[in-house]
Amino acid sequence: MADDFLRIASSLTSIARALHGRGWLVGTSGNLSAVVDRDPLRLAVTPSGVDKGELTAAQILLIDEQSRIVSDHRVKPSDESPLHVRIVKERGAGAVIHTHSIWNTLLSNIHAGDGGVAIEGYEMLKGLQHVKTHQHREWLPIIENSQDMLSLADNISDTVGKNKDAHGILLRGHGLYSWGSDLPQAKRHVEILEFLLEVVGRSPV
Amino acid sequence: MADDFLRIASSLTSIARALHGRGWLVGTSGNLSAVVDRDPLRLAVTPSGVDKGELTAAQILLIDEQSRIVSDHRVKPSDESPLHVRIVKERGAGAVIHTHSIWNTLLSNIHAGDGGVAIEGYEMLKGLQHVKTHQHREWLPIIENSQDMLSLADNISDTVGKNKDAHGILLRGHGLYSWGSDLPQAKRHVEILEFLLEVVGRSPV
Amino acid sequence: MADDFLRIASSLTSIARALHGRGWLVGTSGNLSAVVDRDPLRLAVTPSGVDKGELTAAQILLIDEQSRIVSDHRVKPSDESPLHVRIVKERGAGAVIHTHSIWNTLLSNIHAGDGGVAIEGYEMLKGLQHVKTHQHREWLPIIENSQDMLSLADNISDTVGKNKDAHGILLRGHGLYSWGSDLPQAKRHVEILEFLLEVVGRSPV
Amino acid sequence: MADDFLRIASSLTSIARALHGRGWLVGTSGNLSAVVDRDPLRLAVTPSGVDKGELTAAQILLIDEQSRIVSDHRVKPSDESPLHVRIVKERGAGAVIHTHSIWNTLLSNIHAGDGGVAIEGYEMLKGLQHVKTHQHREWLPIIENSQDMLSLADNISDTVGKNKDAHGILLRGHGLYSWGSDLPQAKRHVEILEFLLEVVGRSPV
Repeated sequence: MADDFLRIASSLTSIARALHGRGWLVGTSGNLSAVVDRDPLRLAVTPSGVDKGELTAAQILLIDEQSRIVSDHRVKPSDESPLHVRIVKERGAGAVIHTHSIWNTLLSNIHAGDGGVAIEGYEMLKGLQHVKTHQHREWLPIIENSQDMLSLADNISDTVGKNKDAHGILLRGHGLYSWGSDLPQAKRHVEILEFLLEVVGRSPV
Repeated sequence: MADDFLRIASSLTSIARALHGRGWLVGTSGNLSAVVDRDPLRLAVTPSGVDKGELTAAQILLIDEQSRIVSDHRVKPSDESPLHVRIVKERGAGAVIHTHSIWNTLLSNIHAGDGGVAIEGYEMLKGLQHVKTHQHREWLPIIENSQDMLSLADNISDTVGKNKDAHGILLRGHGLYSWGSDLPQAKRHVEILEFLLEVVGRSPV
Repeated sequence: MADDFLRIASSLTSIARALHGRGWLVGTSGNLSAVVDRDPLRLAVTPSGVDKGELTAAQILLIDEQSRIVSDHRVKPSDESPLHVRIVKERGAGAVIHTHSIWNTLLSNIHAGDGGVAIEGYEMLKGLQHVKTHQHREWLPIIENSQDMLSLADNISDTVGKNKDAHGILLRGHGLYSWGSDLPQAKRHVEILEFLLEVVGRSPV
Repeated sequence: MADDFLRIASSLTSIARALHGRGWLVGTSGNLSAVVDRDPLRLAVTPSGVDKGELTAAQILLIDEQSRIVSDHRVKPSDESPLHVRIVKERGAGAVIHTHSIWNTLLSNIHAGDGGVAIEGYEMLKGLQHVKTHQHREWLPIIENSQDMLSLADNISDTVGKNKDAHGILLRGHGLYSWGSDLPQAKRHVEILEFLLEVVGRSPV
């Protein structure tokens, strides 16, 4: 497992730096995780309060199902670690990526009253796992933001459990959570959803 | 021909990486091709499902007129390879580039009812082959998207055959196909059309 | 102190180059400073009229409380150095960053009549010092621009003194001043405020 | 003069590459020039039809007052070389930069009926030569585009002669010409004018 952790930490770091370059991890916001082991659950996660443009693989933490650090680090995991754990367990995801972009923030507010954003008719949708046609209708649920991380984790878990076809979820005024079977797929899902949110956001109403 | 293939594969790769940097090949979308031989037809094409930001020349495939792989690769060519073959044959193009950008996606929807987008009065048009004045009127036809690749190939072939002056074609909700006599010209055409689509898209109506 | 100055000059330079890459220090605009010593006050500041994309650590000046150069440089400090000194003294800041961005310029005009911009309800706000919830209401005061630097310094000093919770201040048609306890925090505050100003600016009214 | 030419060609190349990175020299569009000698006039200019992202100093041409190549190159100078020569002569400029950006193209159309764009009240204006206050009103004249380069050169020469305070001129649907006493100043003027055109273009009307 130690080798897996090193390999995954390295991959997590380079993806975090790439997404930082897109402007989706501004300040020290956003976080990424990937499953290292499932039984018991071990998750590689980015640390809290670090500029992702300067992240190094040595800073990646290993946490357990209760979000406790089991690697040799004396820092704090992200407060949002429980949200990653819940998405991994509820959806069997291998990696989870949380981004803050201009367009995901905007649309999470504009469509909050609808409970979600519908994205339909785009070829780009075919890059999402199990989607075979541009006629697919992707429903990105929007949930209210909260500082009570346990209640937010329950709400996310419940929402992603009920929306089995969704490839992501928006937190109002907060950002996007997306996931995939592994890190490259999670990265692809984030790029696709961010692209489509910008297209929807710029479309005339 | 082997030397030509290596040279073209290298050029294809560096252009794919450059266009990826512009955000026009998001996720694993988009594909590029270039003619290596015309008789019989041999086309160098990007593989399916690969992040173009990490593409290497060794991954470039060689296909024949039926989109069968004739190079030593055990992967899948892009489902859209037949579209490249048809444009090469119908227009005598030496290279074809297919991009997914925010603005080409937006305008392919907004102008779908008109059957195309007219671009006129811009100096930038003079960068397109055979265009001598900004007064040129470029008509980019828009066709409906489809998952039936043979029917889509027929539709594209028919449309580019009927629009001999067009330097590109839009697929609704999908993206832009452009081409040129060689790779540098195809790249130039893509950059110019993407620039002009953004100008048109931002112009007050 | 000489060592501190070298270390801070190096950090100032790399942050200036990073912010230049974001397009917030266009032309030779913008300036950055960091406290090297407090008693007597010694401030490391970027020089006037230099392209921040080409800034080197050797060009960073050391000034005193009266904005006089005390390092071995025969150039001019920024005319806006007194503004940095006043913010450092009024707020106990360890670093001050002044940016000119498209969105901070736009919003400083649009909201000038309101005397400021309110930003509320965004998770991203939690990246600002002492902010614990997205429900925080950040009030960015807007003051009129002036070429009388002493009067402008008085106005800024007065405004940041009266708005103890503000993490930044807008000068109308001019740009954003933000600050932090040290350079990394000031950089984080700038990135967060620029992000949120763009979100507010793109939000439907 | 040979040494001057090499030095200027190198500077011209690195500035061209930087502006290409901003998206202002798309396709093979745009051109830059700098005075090497004034009597007789010798101008270093970028060649025609070259991707500025791949420009090398060895490709920079030396031309005379009639836009004839006097360096050892067997290529074509830009068709727009006479426009550079005229601006140099009319304004005593040491360098001229011509860019095609989204925002300069848009505003050259939107404000064509007014004969120009007024930019007033921005601190950023102070980065333009001889401007001492944000209250300065910069008037960027707009002239009609033409494929008759001699007539266009006359029109430009006449317009910049009549507008002695202008730091640039827009050609409708075509782009921006700006200039300065040397290359760094011309680059600064371009960056400032492009920034301000985007601010004006995004401002609510």
